[in-house]
Amino acid sequence: MGPRFTHLIEGLPASVPFVGPETQERARSRPFAARLGANENVFGPSPRAIAAMQEAASGAWMYGDPENHDLRQALAAHHGILPENIVVGEGIDGLLGYLVRMLVAPGDAVVTSEGAYPTFNFHVAGFGGVLHKVPFRGDHEDPDALIARAAEVGAKLIYLANPDNPMGSWQDAETIQRMIEAVPEGALLVLDEAYVELAPQGTAPPLRVDDPRVIRMRTFSKGYGLAGARVGYAMAEAGLIRAFDKIRNHFGMSRISQAGALAALADQDWLRHVQAEVAGARTRIASIAAENGLTALPSATNFVAIDCGADGDLARRVLAELVARDIFVRMPFVSPQDRCIRVSAGRPDDLDAFARALPEALAAARK
Amino acid sequence: MGPRFTHLIEGLPASVPFVGPETQERARSRPFAARLGANENVFGPSPRAIAAMQEAASGAWMYGDPENHDLRQALAAHHGILPENIVVGEGIDGLLGYLVRMLVAPGDAVVTSEGAYPTFNFHVAGFGGVLHKVPFRGDHEDPDALIARAAEVGAKLIYLANPDNPMGSWQDAETIQRMIEAVPEGALLVLDEAYVELAPQGTAPPLRVDDPRVIRMRTFSKGYGLAGARVGYAMAEAGLIRAFDKIRNHFGMSRISQAGALAALADQDWLRHVQAEVAGARTRIASIAAENGLTALPSATNFVAIDCGADGDLARRVLAELVARDIFVRMPFVSPQDRCIRVSAGRPDDLDAFARALPEALAAARK
Repeated sequence: MGPRFTHLIEGLPASVPFVGPETQERARSRPFAARLGANENVFGPSPRAIAAMQEAASGAWMYGDPENHDLRQALAAHHGILPENIVVGEGIDGLLGYLVRMLVAPGDAVVTSEGAYPTFNFHVAGFGGVLHKVPFRGDHEDPDALIARAAEVGAKLIYLANPDNPMGSWQDAETIQRMIEAVPEGALLVLDEAYVELAPQGTAPPLRVDDPRVIRMRTFSKGYGLAGARVGYAMAEAGLIRAFDKIRNHFGMSRISQAGALAALADQDWLRHVQAEVAGARTRIASIAAENGLTALPSATNFVAIDCGADGDLARRVLAELVARDIFVRMPFVSPQDRCIRVSAGRPDDLDAFARALPEALAAARK
Repeated sequence: MGPRFTHLIEGLPASVPFVGPETQERARSRPFAARLGANENVFGPSPRAIAAMQEAASGAWMYGDPENHDLRQALAAHHGILPENIVVGEGIDGLLGYLVRMLVAPGDAVVTSEGAYPTFNFHVAGFGGVLHKVPFRGDHEDPDALIARAAEVGAKLIYLANPDNPMGSWQDAETIQRMIEAVPEGALLVLDEAYVELAPQGTAPPLRVDDPRVIRMRTFSKGYGLAGARVGYAMAEAGLIRAFDKIRNHFGMSRISQAGALAALADQDWLRHVQAEVAGARTRIASIAAENGLTALPSATNFVAIDCGADGDLARRVLAELVARDIFVRMPFVSPQDRCIRVSAGRPDDLDAFARALPEALAAARK
């Protein structure tokens, strides 16, 4: 009869949150000319982070420090908080999985936005939680509606990304702080700030890590350019942070990645360089959109949503035509945000390729 | 009131499976002179794996391929099976966590050996499983007793490591194959073969990946010297392998580690070099033990259990005295195996340091 899965696992679809670009390349038997779909930081990590990882490679025979001590110390100093308020994990994806597991039993209510981060939804479904989804409002997540729905359904978790993915929109710090203050008794706000290093000053409210109503997730994948190293961290009240130790994969961190993240954090000049490059790329993407009669949405991230001017069917055709022309991009999943395609900030060459492909892709899609 | 944890999580202890050597070094304010406690491969990964990781470092801005396609293809070719029978994950630790989650609901029975791998027990407790433990028999895990207990309690999972940790003992392939044939209906044998590359020929039964009664776990942490890269894999029937996709952290693998594992697998000459070095180190450890009037147990791994000749109290004192002399070693947790200390295969310098420290440590412990 084979292994007996739990009822919960039996009932899960065999779906994956995202198909990777390599999978598409294998299916196409052709590499992409521009990799602009996964909001990776094409400007790369700090050269010092690369050097630190190269240096650490020969020490890969040793397990990484399960306490992530040095990185947590450095993050604590960087943020002006204590290491006991920080847990490091295998990307925000890994930390979201742990957090959902800690709070969500089968049937428990969770609130997120319709069209928000699929990997969070994947984890909620994976632990049997019941997802309640609130629509975007004017291409922004809607804090008031999220809070109201959480109160209504008795949610244990509320997910909000600021800045937001897939639209690139953002809330100011005051709005987020008001949202934190309004979190219903017994709920926890998961504030996913993956893109915050690329957002305007005033996007993140001050860190108040003793507040038990919010956990803030950050990553080295975006601004710091280390997506492939898998280093995320969460900041919250010490009791919540300690609880991760009950279940996390203590020896789950790559030792090389620990070294890379530490060096990346220390090189804030490189982060500023990346911020400038990303700002330039956003402007360029908006110009390319305008040249094609399309509108780029304002973005506080390293990607730009381009409104293709009609419905999801058109945008899906534009996306398919771009992919056929070797440009890897993605797009929002739900209406009306799916009128857009989503283009990551690229190097000049990447965006040249995109600029060349877009007019043809539009023409083909409109046929 | 703060976040509402599940009942399961509320009831878990805040224990960790292992304290890392870095934690001990920080507590001692002094580094170890020899790192011989975590069964790491001090001979290191293949130089080609190091070079591949150094090369991959500058590409760390890209997420790793979530399908681990290239590595699974290479592993399939290496083992003469299909990629659909292989799942790659964040070390055996990560894969054990996923497997337990897929099968074990609160109250479900799981069987393992008393004193066997704590991280497996950590995951079982973490999902509310009920652990039934069978004693070692003559310093070996006891396949017949494990099977009998599994039948008795209706276990969903049976854990056996071959070769075994912490004793270094092993079963021959025929014994393991007989065990697989005897797995009770509805149970799954987790055959942890982390050390199998360091064991004599004839330790692993042939791979029959269509057999739904067993899942076999392997790693790049031991023979291949990549503990810090966190790459493990499991081989089993395709339906069980596919089920991992329902819950695993699809983007959890470091891209650098993927490259390192691929290169390490391709360098079987280096593996043979490591095997020879490890064999030499085992012989040397046995000599050091004998010079001190102690007995080293036979080992099919990269560590050796040394019988300190009395009870756990003496062995714990020997261990403490070795640690005080800057030699990082560990020891079995339960009686009567805890009469031993466990020493990883070291380089000549490491073992010189151990040889110098052991007589003093023994004398101090016996006082």
